Amino acid sequence: MSEAWLNKVNWSGDGLVAAIAQDAASGRVLMVAWMDREALKHTVLSGEAVYWSRSRKKLWKKGEESGHVQKVREIRLDCDGDAVLLQIEQQGGIACHTGRASCFFSRLENDQWVEVDAVIKNPDDIYKK
Amino acid sequence: MSEAWLNKVNWSGDGLVAAIAQDAASGRVLMVAWMDREALKHTVLSGEAVYWSRSRKKLWKKGEESGHVQKVREIRLDCDGDAVLLQIEQQGGIACHTGRASCFFSRLENDQWVEVDAVIKNPDDIYKK
Repeated sequence: MSEAWLNKVNWSGDGLVAAIAQDAASGRVLMVAWMDREALKHTVLSGEAVYWSRSRKKLWKKGEESGHVQKVREIRLDCDGDAVLLQIEQQGGIACHTGRASCFFSRLENDQWVEVDAVIKNPDDIYKK
Repeated sequence: MSEAWLNKVNWSGDGLVAAIAQDAASGRVLMVAWMDREALKHTVLSGEAVYWSRSRKKLWKKGEESGHVQKVREIRLDCDGDAVLLQIEQQGGIACHTGRASCFFSRLENDQWVEVDAVIKNPDDIYKK
C-alpha cells in the first residue's frame, strides 16, 4: 500500500504516536499506549491493534498472550497529528493487564486515587506461564 | 491540599502526563494534550482543564482565548500512571482550534486521512486578535 498516510502522522522524536483505544460500542476509553510506524502499519493491515512497548522495546500485538485482541473498526488522527484514536472491539471485555475492562480504573476522590472498577478475571488466570 | 495523589502519577522524564479529554455526556474523545504537575493541580483546584503547552512551554488554561473552557467532572488515572482521563463538559461544544467539536476529525479511509467532521465555527471568529 502507499505509505503517504503514514507520513502525515507527526511522529515524536522517538518515532512514536500516542494511541487511544476506545470501545466502539460503549464509548469507554480502555487504554492509552504508543505506536511506532510499523505498529500502526501492522494495525491497519491486520485490523487488530499492535502497539510499541516502550518498556520491552518491541512490537506488541495486543492480546498475544492474554487473547484479549482488539479488533479495529476505525482509526482517526488528531489535528496536530500526534495522537490516533482507535474504535475497537475488545475481545474478552478486558483491556487492562490487571484483569479490568479499562486501564482507567482509578478515580480521583478527595485527593485520593480510588480503584472503582472490579477485576473481571484474575491476571494469574490470564497470563499463564 | 495534600499532594500525595500527585506523587502517584508516573510523570515522564519531561515531567508530563498525557491527558485525554472525553465529553462526559456523549463519550466522544475530544482531544489529547499534556499536563505537568502544576497543570493537573490547577485543573483539580479550579475544576477546569489546564494543560501544559509543549510548543509554548507554559501553562495553558483551555479556553483562555476561545472561551471554550472545559468543566471537569471526573479524573481517572490509568494502571501505569502515565495517562489521565478527564470527563468534561465542553463549553461552546468546540474543543479543537480548527473550530470542530473534536480534534479527531480525520478518519483513515483507504490509506487516506479524510476530514469527516464539519467546522462548527470559523477559527477567525474564535481567536480574535
